[in-house]
Amino acid sequence: MTKKLRLVVMASGRGSNFSAIADAIREGALDAEIAALVCDRPKAPVIDKAMACGNMDIAVLTRKGFASRADYDMALADLVFGYDPDVIALAGFMRVLGPEFVGRFPGRIINIHPALLPSFPGLDAQRQALEYGVKVTGCTVHFVDEGTDTGPIILQEAVPVLDEDDEESLSARILEKEHKLYVKALRLISEGKVRMEGRRTLTEDKGL
Amino acid sequence: MTKKLRLVVMASGRGSNFSAIADAIREGALDAEIAALVCDRPKAPVIDKAMACGNMDIAVLTRKGFASRADYDMALADLVFGYDPDVIALAGFMRVLGPEFVGRFPGRIINIHPALLPSFPGLDAQRQALEYGVKVTGCTVHFVDEGTDTGPIILQEAVPVLDEDDEESLSARILEKEHKLYVKALRLISEGKVRMEGRRTLTEDKGL
Repeated sequence: MTKKLRLVVMASGRGSNFSAIADAIREGALDAEIAALVCDRPKAPVIDKAMACGNMDIAVLTRKGFASRADYDMALADLVFGYDPDVIALAGFMRVLGPEFVGRFPGRIINIHPALLPSFPGLDAQRQALEYGVKVTGCTVHFVDEGTDTGPIILQEAVPVLDEDDEESLSARILEKEHKLYVKALRLISEGKVRMEGRRTLTEDKGL
Repeated sequence: MTKKLRLVVMASGRGSNFSAIADAIREGALDAEIAALVCDRPKAPVIDKAMACGNMDIAVLTRKGFASRADYDMALADLVFGYDPDVIALAGFMRVLGPEFVGRFPGRIINIHPALLPSFPGLDAQRQALEYGVKVTGCTVHFVDEGTDTGPIILQEAVPVLDEDDEESLSARILEKEHKLYVKALRLISEGKVRMEGRRTLTEDKGL
Protein backbone atom coordinates (compact mmCIF):
# COMPACT_ATOMS: atom_id res chain seq x y z
CA MET A 1 0.00 0.00 0.00
CA THR A 2 1.62 3.20 -1.12
CA LYS A 3 0.94 6.49 0.60
CA LYS A 4 1.98 9.93 -0.52
CA LEU A 5 4.28 11.00 2.30
CA ARG A 6 3.97 14.43 3.78
CA LEU A 7 7.46 15.49 4.86
CA VAL A 8 9.09 18.14 6.94
CA VAL A 9 12.81 18.36 6.20
CA MET A 10 15.03 19.89 8.89
CA ALA A 11 18.46 21.16 7.84
CA SER A 12 21.15 23.63 8.90
CA GLY A 13 23.68 23.61 6.09
CA ARG A 14 24.14 23.34 2.36
CA GLY A 15 21.24 20.94 2.01
CA SER A 16 22.58 18.30 -0.35
CA ASN A 17 20.34 15.63 1.18
CA PHE A 18 17.43 18.08 1.03
CA SER A 19 18.10 18.50 -2.69
CA ALA A 20 18.34 14.73 -3.21
CA ILE A 21 14.89 14.32 -1.67
CA ALA A 22 13.38 17.28 -3.56
CA ASP A 23 14.86 16.02 -6.84
CA ALA A 24 13.52 12.50 -6.30
CA ILE A 25 10.03 13.90 -5.71
CA ARG A 26 10.21 16.11 -8.82
CA GLU A 27 11.42 13.21 -10.95
CA GLY A 28 8.63 10.93 -9.71
CA ALA A 29 11.04 8.55 -7.95
CA LEU A 30 9.49 9.25 -4.55
CA ASP A 31 5.76 9.68 -3.87
CA ALA A 32 6.00 12.51 -1.35
CA GLU A 33 5.71 16.22 -0.84
CA ILE A 34 7.84 18.49 1.29
CA ALA A 35 5.38 20.55 3.33
CA ALA A 36 8.15 22.65 4.82
CA LEU A 37 11.86 23.11 5.23
CA VAL A 38 12.63 23.95 8.85
CA CYS A 39 15.99 25.54 9.48
CA ASP A 40 17.78 26.91 12.54
CA ARG A 41 20.19 29.21 10.66
CA PRO A 42 18.86 32.21 8.70
CA LYS A 43 21.70 32.15 6.19
CA ALA A 44 21.98 28.43 5.52
CA PRO A 45 22.43 27.70 1.79
CA VAL A 46 19.63 25.09 2.03
CA ILE A 47 17.15 27.99 2.28
CA ASP A 48 18.05 29.18 -1.22
CA LYS A 49 17.54 25.65 -2.51
CA ALA A 50 14.10 25.44 -0.91
CA MET A 51 13.19 28.86 -2.35
CA ALA A 52 14.23 27.67 -5.78
CA CYS A 53 11.82 24.72 -5.40
CA GLY A 54 9.09 27.27 -4.75
CA ASN A 55 6.42 24.81 -3.61
CA MET A 56 6.94 24.56 0.15
CA ASP A 57 6.93 26.62 3.31
CA ILE A 58 10.26 27.72 4.69
CA ALA A 59 10.42 28.26 8.44
CA VAL A 60 13.51 29.55 10.23
CA LEU A 61 13.59 29.34 14.00
CA THR A 62 16.84 30.29 15.73
CA ARG A 63 17.88 29.29 19.21
CA LYS A 64 18.40 32.93 20.31
CA GLY A 65 15.27 34.35 21.94
CA PHE A 66 14.66 31.10 23.90
CA ALA A 67 15.66 30.82 27.54
CA SER A 68 16.52 27.12 27.42
CA ARG A 69 17.06 24.32 24.99
CA ALA A 70 13.85 22.73 26.23
CA ASP A 71 11.91 25.90 25.40
CA TYR A 72 13.45 25.99 21.95
CA ASP A 73 12.70 22.32 21.35
CA MET A 74 9.08 22.84 22.38
CA ALA A 75 8.68 25.79 20.03
CA LEU A 76 10.32 23.78 17.25
CA ALA A 77 7.97 20.88 17.93
CA ASP A 78 4.94 23.19 17.83
CA LEU A 79 6.14 24.62 14.53
CA VAL A 80 6.72 21.19 12.96
CA PHE A 81 3.47 19.77 14.40
CA GLY A 82 1.57 22.47 12.57
CA TYR A 83 2.65 20.98 9.23
CA ASP A 84 1.14 17.61 10.19
CA PRO A 85 4.02 15.59 8.73
CA ASP A 86 4.03 11.81 8.27
CA VAL A 87 7.80 11.85 8.50
CA ILE A 88 10.33 14.40 9.74
CA ALA A 89 13.57 13.95 7.84
CA LEU A 90 16.70 15.38 9.47
CA ALA A 91 19.15 16.32 6.75
CA GLY A 92 22.18 17.85 8.39
CA PHE A 93 20.23 19.51 11.18
CA MET A 94 23.09 20.45 13.46
CA ARG A 95 21.30 20.41 16.80
CA VAL A 96 20.65 17.46 19.07
CA LEU A 97 16.88 17.32 19.54
CA GLY A 98 15.83 16.80 23.15
CA PRO A 99 12.93 14.77 24.54
CA GLU A 100 10.60 17.79 24.23
CA PHE A 101 10.91 17.40 20.47
CA VAL A 102 11.55 13.68 19.97
CA GLY A 103 8.76 12.65 22.36
CA ARG A 104 6.20 14.53 20.26
CA PHE A 105 6.81 12.46 17.11
CA PRO A 106 7.41 8.85 18.13
CA GLY A 107 8.63 6.69 15.24
CA ARG A 108 8.30 9.53 12.77
CA ILE A 109 11.71 11.22 12.86
CA ILE A 110 14.49 9.82 10.70
CA ASN A 111 18.09 10.86 10.25
CA ILE A 112 21.03 10.02 8.03
CA HIS A 113 24.46 9.53 9.59
CA PRO A 114 27.77 9.30 7.67
CA ALA A 115 29.04 6.06 9.26
CA LEU A 116 27.95 2.48 9.78
CA LEU A 117 26.36 2.84 13.18
CA PRO A 118 26.96 1.85 15.95
CA SER A 119 30.50 2.78 14.87
CA PHE A 120 31.35 6.49 15.01
CA PRO A 121 28.20 8.19 16.32
CA GLY A 122 28.10 11.94 16.91
CA LEU A 123 30.07 14.64 15.18
CA ASP A 124 32.82 14.21 12.58
CA ALA A 125 32.02 10.58 11.85
CA GLN A 126 34.22 10.52 8.76
CA ARG A 127 37.21 11.87 10.68
CA GLN A 128 36.57 9.38 13.48
CA ALA A 129 36.61 6.57 10.90
CA LEU A 130 39.90 7.75 9.38
CA GLU A 131 41.54 8.15 12.77
CA TYR A 132 40.42 4.69 13.88
CA GLY A 133 41.78 3.26 10.64
CA VAL A 134 38.75 1.32 9.36
CA LYS A 135 38.77 0.00 5.80
CA VAL A 136 34.98 0.05 5.43
CA THR A 137 32.64 2.78 6.59
CA GLY A 138 29.36 3.97 5.11
CA CYS A 139 26.07 5.62 5.93
CA THR A 140 23.01 4.79 8.00
CA VAL A 141 19.38 5.91 7.83
CA HIS A 142 17.79 5.42 11.24
CA PHE A 143 14.85 6.38 13.38
CA VAL A 144 15.69 9.07 15.90
CA ASP A 145 15.28 8.29 19.57
CA GLU A 146 16.52 10.26 22.55
CA GLY A 147 20.11 9.02 22.30
CA THR A 148 22.79 10.25 19.92
CA ASP A 149 22.45 8.16 16.74
CA THR A 150 21.16 5.16 18.70
CA GLY A 151 17.71 4.60 17.17
CA PRO A 152 16.61 1.57 15.10
CA ILE A 153 18.36 1.29 11.74
CA ILE A 154 16.35 1.35 8.50
CA LEU A 155 19.08 1.05 5.87
CA GLN A 156 22.86 1.04 5.72
CA GLU A 157 25.34 1.03 2.91
CA ALA A 158 29.06 0.31 3.00
CA VAL A 159 31.69 2.61 1.48
CA PRO A 160 35.38 1.66 1.16
CA VAL A 161 38.14 3.74 2.78
CA LEU A 162 41.17 4.05 0.50
CA ASP A 163 44.82 4.49 1.47
CA GLU A 164 44.92 7.98 0.01
CA ASP A 165 41.69 9.22 1.61
CA ASP A 166 41.47 12.36 3.67
CA GLU A 167 38.34 13.63 5.40
CA GLU A 168 37.20 15.50 2.30
CA SER A 169 37.55 12.65 -0.20
CA LEU A 170 35.97 10.14 2.16
CA SER A 171 33.08 12.49 3.01
CA ALA A 172 32.39 13.05 -0.69
CA ARG A 173 32.31 9.30 -1.39
CA ILE A 174 29.91 8.71 1.51
CA LEU A 175 27.71 11.71 0.61
CA GLU A 176 27.08 10.32 -2.86
CA LYS A 177 25.68 7.16 -1.25
CA GLU A 178 23.74 9.13 1.36
CA HIS A 179 21.61 10.82 -1.29
CA LYS A 180 20.48 7.51 -2.78
CA LEU A 181 20.06 5.78 0.57
CA TYR A 182 17.91 8.53 2.08
CA VAL A 183 15.55 8.56 -0.90
CA LYS A 184 15.37 4.79 -0.82
CA ALA A 185 14.49 4.73 2.88
CA LEU A 186 11.72 7.29 2.34
CA ARG A 187 10.41 5.25 -0.57
CA LEU A 188 10.31 2.08 1.56
CA ILE A 189 8.38 4.00 4.24
CA SER A 190 5.94 5.41 1.67
CA GLU A 191 5.36 1.87 0.38
CA GLY A 192 4.57 0.63 3.91
CA LYS A 193 7.54 -1.73 3.84
CA VAL A 194 9.31 -0.71 7.04
CA ARG A 195 8.13 -2.80 9.99
CA MET A 196 9.58 -3.01 13.49
CA GLU A 197 10.45 -6.23 15.27
CA GLY A 198 12.01 -5.36 18.61
CA ARG A 199 14.69 -2.86 17.67
CA ARG A 200 15.23 -4.54 14.31
CA THR A 201 13.47 -3.13 11.27
CA LEU A 202 12.37 -5.37 8.44
CA THR A 203 12.31 -3.62 5.09
CA GLU A 204 11.85 -6.36 2.47
CA ASP A 205 15.03 -4.89 1.05
CA LYS A 206 17.25 -7.14 -1.02
CA GLY A 207 20.21 -4.80 -1.26
CA LEU A 208 20.77 -1.76 -3.42
CA MET B 1 59.47 -7.83 -2.15
CA THR B 2 57.84 -11.15 -1.44
CA LYS B 3 58.83 -13.28 1.50
CA LYS B 4 57.75 -16.81 2.24
CA LEU B 5 55.87 -16.37 5.51
CA ARG B 6 56.48 -18.72 8.36
CA LEU B 7 53.20 -19.04 10.26
CA VAL B 8 51.93 -20.36 13.53
CA VAL B 9 48.16 -20.77 13.46
CA MET B 10 46.34 -20.80 16.81
CA ALA B 11 42.85 -22.29 16.93
CA SER B 12 40.39 -23.89 19.35
CA GLY B 13 37.52 -25.11 17.21
CA ARG B 14 36.58 -26.58 13.89
CA GLY B 15 39.33 -24.74 12.08
CA SER B 16 37.62 -23.46 8.97
CA ASN B 17 39.95 -20.46 8.78
CA PHE B 18 42.90 -22.79 9.40
CA SER B 19 41.76 -24.85 6.42
CA ALA B 20 41.33 -21.78 4.24
CA ILE B 21 44.96 -20.80 4.96
CA ALA B 22 46.28 -24.34 4.47
CA ASP B 23 44.35 -24.70 1.21
CA ALA B 24 45.64 -21.38 -0.12
CA ILE B 25 49.22 -22.46 0.59
CA ARG B 26 48.72 -25.85 -1.06
CA GLU B 27 47.15 -24.24 -4.12
CA GLY B 28 50.00 -21.75 -4.45
CA ALA B 29 47.78 -18.75 -3.72
CA LEU B 30 49.78 -17.83 -0.62
CA ASP B 31 53.56 -18.02 -0.31
CA ALA B 32 53.74 -19.35 3.24
CA GLU B 33 54.22 -22.41 5.38
CA ILE B 34 52.44 -23.34 8.58
CA ALA B 35 55.20 -24.30 11.02
CA ALA B 36 52.71 -25.37 13.65
CA LEU B 37 49.11 -25.47 14.70
CA VAL B 38 48.83 -24.49 18.36
CA CYS B 39 45.64 -25.50 20.08
CA ASP B 40 44.29 -25.22 23.64
CA ARG B 41 41.73 -28.04 23.37
CA PRO B 42 42.89 -31.65 22.88
CA LYS B 43 39.75 -32.69 21.00
CA ALA B 44 39.26 -29.68 18.74
CA PRO B 45 38.34 -30.75 15.18
CA VAL B 46 41.04 -28.44 13.82
CA ILE B 47 43.63 -30.97 15.07
CA ASP B 48 42.32 -33.62 12.68
CA LYS B 49 42.55 -31.11 9.85
CA ALA B 50 46.16 -30.31 10.70
CA MET B 51 46.99 -34.02 10.93
CA ALA B 52 45.48 -34.54 7.49
CA CYS B 53 47.82 -31.85 6.14
CA GLY B 54 50.69 -33.87 7.56
CA ASN B 55 53.40 -31.28 7.05
CA MET B 56 53.38 -29.30 10.29
CA ASP B 57 53.85 -29.62 14.03
CA ILE B 58 50.76 -29.84 16.18
CA ALA B 59 51.09 -28.57 19.73
CA VAL B 60 48.31 -28.78 22.30
CA LEU B 61 48.69 -26.80 25.50
CA THR B 62 45.73 -26.74 27.87
CA ARG B 63 45.12 -24.20 30.58
CA LYS B 64 44.86 -26.87 33.32
CA GLY B 65 48.20 -27.47 35.01
CA PHE B 66 48.97 -23.72 35.13
CA ALA B 67 48.44 -21.74 38.31
CA SER B 68 47.45 -18.49 36.59
CA ARG B 69 46.52 -17.14 33.22
CA ALA B 70 49.82 -15.25 33.17
CA ASP B 71 51.74 -18.52 33.68
CA TYR B 72 49.77 -20.15 30.89
CA ASP B 73 50.32 -17.21 28.55
CA MET B 74 54.07 -17.32 29.22
CA ALA B 75 54.24 -21.04 28.49
CA LEU B 76 52.20 -20.50 25.34
CA ALA B 77 54.53 -17.69 24.28
CA ASP B 78 57.60 -19.88 24.87
CA LEU B 79 56.02 -22.64 22.81
CA VAL B 80 55.15 -20.32 19.90
CA PHE B 81 58.51 -18.51 20.09
CA GLY B 82 60.22 -21.83 19.49
CA TYR B 83 58.70 -22.02 16.03
CA ASP B 84 60.21 -18.64 15.11
CA PRO B 85 57.12 -17.43 13.25
CA ASP B 86 56.93 -14.32 11.08
CA VAL B 87 53.22 -14.11 11.79
CA ILE B 88 50.95 -15.71 14.40
CA ALA B 89 47.47 -16.08 12.94
CA LEU B 90 44.64 -16.49 15.43
CA ALA B 91 41.88 -18.49 13.79
CA GLY B 92 39.13 -18.99 16.34
CA PHE B 93 41.48 -19.22 19.30
CA MET B 94 38.96 -18.89 22.11
CA ARG B 95 41.16 -17.35 24.78
CA VAL B 96 42.01 -13.72 25.30
CA LEU B 97 45.79 -13.49 25.18
CA GLY B 98 47.29 -11.39 27.94
CA PRO B 99 50.28 -9.04 27.85
CA GLU B 100 52.64 -11.94 28.68
CA PHE B 101 51.83 -13.33 25.24
CA VAL B 102 51.03 -10.26 23.15
CA GLY B 103 54.07 -8.35 24.40
CA ARG B 104 56.40 -11.06 23.12
CA PHE B 105 55.33 -10.67 19.48
CA PRO B 106 54.77 -6.98 18.78
CA GLY B 107 53.10 -6.38 15.39
CA ARG B 108 53.21 -10.06 14.52
CA ILE B 109 49.89 -11.39 15.81
CA ILE B 110 46.81 -11.07 13.63
CA ASN B 111 43.21 -12.06 14.19
CA ILE B 112 39.99 -12.26 12.24
CA HIS B 113 36.78 -10.98 13.81
CA PRO B 114 33.25 -11.57 12.45
CA ALA B 115 32.10 -7.93 12.52
CA LEU B 116 33.11 -4.55 11.15
CA LEU B 117 35.15 -3.34 14.10
CA PRO B 118 34.90 -1.15 16.15
CA SER B 119 31.27 -2.37 16.08
CA PHE B 120 30.57 -5.56 18.06
CA PRO B 121 33.92 -6.54 19.59
CA GLY B 122 34.20 -9.60 21.82
CA LEU B 123 32.10 -12.74 21.83
CA ASP B 124 29.04 -13.47 19.71
CA ALA B 125 29.61 -10.62 17.28
CA GLN B 126 27.04 -11.94 14.82
CA ARG B 127 24.37 -12.14 17.53
CA GLN B 128 25.28 -8.66 18.74
CA ALA B 129 24.81 -7.37 15.18
CA LEU B 130 21.40 -9.01 14.82
CA GLU B 131 20.23 -7.74 18.19
CA TYR B 132 21.36 -4.21 17.42
CA GLY B 133 19.58 -4.39 14.08
CA VAL B 134 22.34 -3.36 11.67
CA LYS B 135 21.81 -3.86 7.94
CA VAL B 136 25.52 -4.19 7.14
CA THR B 137 28.08 -6.12 9.13
CA GLY B 138 31.17 -8.00 7.96
CA CYS B 139 34.58 -9.18 9.02
CA THR B 140 37.86 -7.59 10.03
CA VAL B 141 41.47 -8.79 9.93
CA HIS B 142 43.47 -6.81 12.49
CA PHE B 143 46.70 -6.77 14.42
CA VAL B 144 46.27 -7.94 17.99
CA ASP B 145 47.12 -5.54 20.79
CA GLU B 146 46.35 -5.87 24.48
CA GLY B 147 42.71 -4.78 24.15
CA THR B 148 39.80 -6.90 22.96
CA ASP B 149 39.65 -6.52 19.17
CA THR B 150 41.08 -3.00 19.32
CA GLY B 151 44.29 -3.33 17.27
CA PRO B 152 45.04 -1.65 13.92
CA ILE B 153 42.85 -2.91 11.08
CA ILE B 154 44.43 -4.52 8.01
CA LEU B 155 41.37 -5.40 5.92
CA GLN B 156 37.60 -5.35 6.26
CA GLU B 157 34.77 -6.56 4.12
CA ALA B 158 31.08 -5.76 4.35
CA VAL B 159 28.35 -8.41 4.43
CA PRO B 160 24.61 -7.61 4.19
CA VAL B 161 22.16 -8.59 6.94
CA LEU B 162 18.87 -9.83 5.49
CA ASP B 163 15.39 -9.66 7.04
CA GLU B 164 15.21 -13.43 7.39
CA ASP B 165 18.67 -13.87 8.94
CA ASP B 166 19.25 -15.70 12.18
CA GLU B 167 22.62 -16.13 13.88
CA GLU B 168 23.42 -19.25 11.88
CA SER B 169 22.66 -17.89 8.41
CA LEU B 170 24.45 -14.62 9.11
CA SER B 171 27.49 -16.39 10.57
CA ALA B 172 27.71 -18.63 7.49
CA ARG B 173 27.58 -15.64 5.12
CA ILE B 174 30.31 -13.86 7.08
CA LEU B 175 32.47 -16.99 7.39
CA GLU B 176 32.61 -17.41 3.63
CA LYS B 177 34.10 -13.89 3.39
CA GLU B 178 36.42 -14.51 6.34
CA HIS B 179 38.23 -17.29 4.53
CA LYS B 180 39.05 -15.09 1.54
CA LEU B 181 39.85 -12.02 3.60
CA TYR B 182 42.26 -13.82 5.92
CA VAL B 183 44.22 -15.31 3.04
CA LYS B 184 44.28 -11.95 1.32
CA ALA B 185 45.64 -10.21 4.43
CA LEU B 186 48.40 -12.82 4.78
CA ARG B 187 49.25 -12.41 1.10
CA LEU B 188 49.52 -8.61 1.48
CA ILE B 189 51.84 -9.13 4.48
CA SER B 190 53.98 -11.65 2.56
CA GLU B 191 54.25 -9.14 -0.27
CA GLY B 192 55.46 -6.43 2.12
CA LYS B 193 52.44 -4.27 1.35
CA VAL B 194 51.14 -3.63 4.86
CA ARG B 195 52.62 -0.45 6.31
CA MET B 196 51.65 1.42 9.49
CA GLU B 197 50.90 5.13 9.65
CA GLY B 198 49.81 5.95 13.18
CA ARG B 199 47.13 3.39 13.86
CA ARG B 200 46.09 3.35 10.22
CA THR B 201 47.49 0.62 7.99
CA LEU B 202 48.16 1.25 4.31
CA THR B 203 47.83 -1.86 2.18
CA GLU B 204 47.87 -0.70 -1.45
CA ASP B 205 44.56 -2.55 -1.60
CA LYS B 206 42.03 -1.41 -4.15
CA GLY B 207 39.12 -3.51 -2.88
CA LEU B 208 38.36 -7.17 -3.27
